[in-house]
Amino acid sequence: MFGFGGIMPKEGGFFELFNESGVLMASAMHEFHRMLEYPKEMASRSESIKELEHKADEVTHKCMTLMHRTFITPLDREDIHLLIKSMDDIIDFIDASAQRLHLYDVTVIPPDLLKLAGLTVNSVELVKQAVHMLPNLKNSPEILKICVEINRLENQCDQVLRAAVAELFRNEQDLRLMIKLKEIYELLETVSDRCEDVANVIESIVLEYN
Amino acid sequence: MFGFGGIMPKEGGFFELFNESGVLMASAMHEFHRMLEYPKEMASRSESIKELEHKADEVTHKCMTLMHRTFITPLDREDIHLLIKSMDDIIDFIDASAQRLHLYDVTVIPPDLLKLAGLTVNSVELVKQAVHMLPNLKNSPEILKICVEINRLENQCDQVLRAAVAELFRNEQDLRLMIKLKEIYELLETVSDRCEDVANVIESIVLEYN
Amino acid sequence: MFGFGGIMPKEGGFFELFNESGVLMASAMHEFHRMLEYPKEMASRSESIKELEHKADEVTHKCMTLMHRTFITPLDREDIHLLIKSMDDIIDFIDASAQRLHLYDVTVIPPDLLKLAGLTVNSVELVKQAVHMLPNLKNSPEILKICVEINRLENQCDQVLRAAVAELFRNEQDLRLMIKLKEIYELLETVSDRCEDVANVIESIVLEYN
Repeated sequence: MFGFGGIMPKEGGFFELFNESGVLMASAMHEFHRMLEYPKEMASRSESIKELEHKADEVTHKCMTLMHRTFITPLDREDIHLLIKSMDDIIDFIDASAQRLHLYDVTVIPPDLLKLAGLTVNSVELVKQAVHMLPNLKNSPEILKICVEINRLENQCDQVLRAAVAELFRNEQDLRLMIKLKEIYELLETVSDRCEDVANVIESIVLEYN
Repeated sequence: MFGFGGIMPKEGGFFELFNESGVLMASAMHEFHRMLEYPKEMASRSESIKELEHKADEVTHKCMTLMHRTFITPLDREDIHLLIKSMDDIIDFIDASAQRLHLYDVTVIPPDLLKLAGLTVNSVELVKQAVHMLPNLKNSPEILKICVEINRLENQCDQVLRAAVAELFRNEQDLRLMIKLKEIYELLETVSDRCEDVANVIESIVLEYN
Repeated sequence: MFGFGGIMPKEGGFFELFNESGVLMASAMHEFHRMLEYPKEMASRSESIKELEHKADEVTHKCMTLMHRTFITPLDREDIHLLIKSMDDIIDFIDASAQRLHLYDVTVIPPDLLKLAGLTVNSVELVKQAVHMLPNLKNSPEILKICVEINRLENQCDQVLRAAVAELFRNEQDLRLMIKLKEIYELLETVSDRCEDVANVIESIVLEYN
């Protein structure tokens, strides 16, 4: 279904929409990371993450409407659906982590949480890059490398989560705080899980169109 | 794929099955709401919700079998699958909320839970209505309005959930009860999330067939 | 799409891959059961489950790649996707249960957990059998019986879970341990939920191709 020169046609603007979604999720993730570094700005930053999440919702919505109105799509409908849906999940979980952090009034940020957020920033950035490179088939080898790296980061995030939760159960005396932090760790780790889902979809798209 | 006069053909009885599923979920949700108003009837009401959930399972099952045996379906197979699956999720989460409430022996119902249940009754009723109106294309503008309203209700439910959980962490002295109620709130809020999923599927169906 | 004699063609090796996935999940589930019987071997057994889960990931990956590269598949693409994805979910939840048990350092195994694991071993074994029998249409009646049995086991697992969690809330004095065990019970019960998902996919495949 490719046009001349191995460039995927920009019909219907699907790739622009994927790109927009990628930019929004990366902004949200950076905001979240800064929220952890400057807990005093929690209220305003959690609000801007919520706004970014709403914008991403609109992009997803536009993409679905476009898909239903486009006769010939540049990718399989199922791939478009899977891709935009799993990208939407990423920003949803960033938002959920941010809202919970703010709502639960967690102001002392444990080092493990900052570490997990740092790794997750990398994952989300790589998803943004891969999606950006997707329309050009020449990028395939590099996209596949990025997908491998996203998988590696997910394993690392999982290890950080496990160590952090084990530590919480062992040493956190305040049971309420333990429950709050456990939930936030798990929500944040789900962001990297969803990045892996996107990487898998992208990988299968690249393999299919080569 | 529409017949004369913009009426979707009732081939295969798909719309009847969607309708049955909608009626079952609305009954289950009303039962749940009454369960909160009359905690003494918890045992019998949780049992009738379980029965309604089993009936909905059968409807879903019939719908899937029908889809596999029907050569030309009135809607895309993927849309049928998504619609019946997300409707089935709604009643599953109503049932999960009810069983948990009964199992955990929560007999003092916090006002926030009743408030959340009231909003959720509205969401589920709107899903039932939208599904009922689906076979007739003339209803499209009204169906789309209902979908917007379901989305609005989901946002409201989310706010009630957040406030309620923050309140629990702050003031509930009994940690066991806090854990129980938090779980029930989250399960019940998932009902309105799933209503939003159904609204999204319905909206895309209406847009596609117009 | 069947070949002569009602045997599904082994094109592309899809059935071999389903089979491999079934064998891996059954091995992982047996390891988990032994982990509960011999808590001293928890470290080594949780490690071998992790390895089995990685192998299953590779099988899923191969299956998806194969699907994208095969022009005519022996089953609908959507069915292949659903089947391998829900089989992958089964081993993921077995692994999650195992890692949590090890991480949380739960060394005294409650009888209810062993009971739930025993039922789950049966479910997973039945999934393995059904998948193994899938390529031969003559097996259809027996496959459908197995699917009914998997559904029955899921209901039983659900009852054991509920009773076990109610018991935890009532009698477990150590709140940390209560939280840990509740999570492990819920993860393990999700294994039988996912087995039911696989049974539903298999059932609809069998109905479609008969």
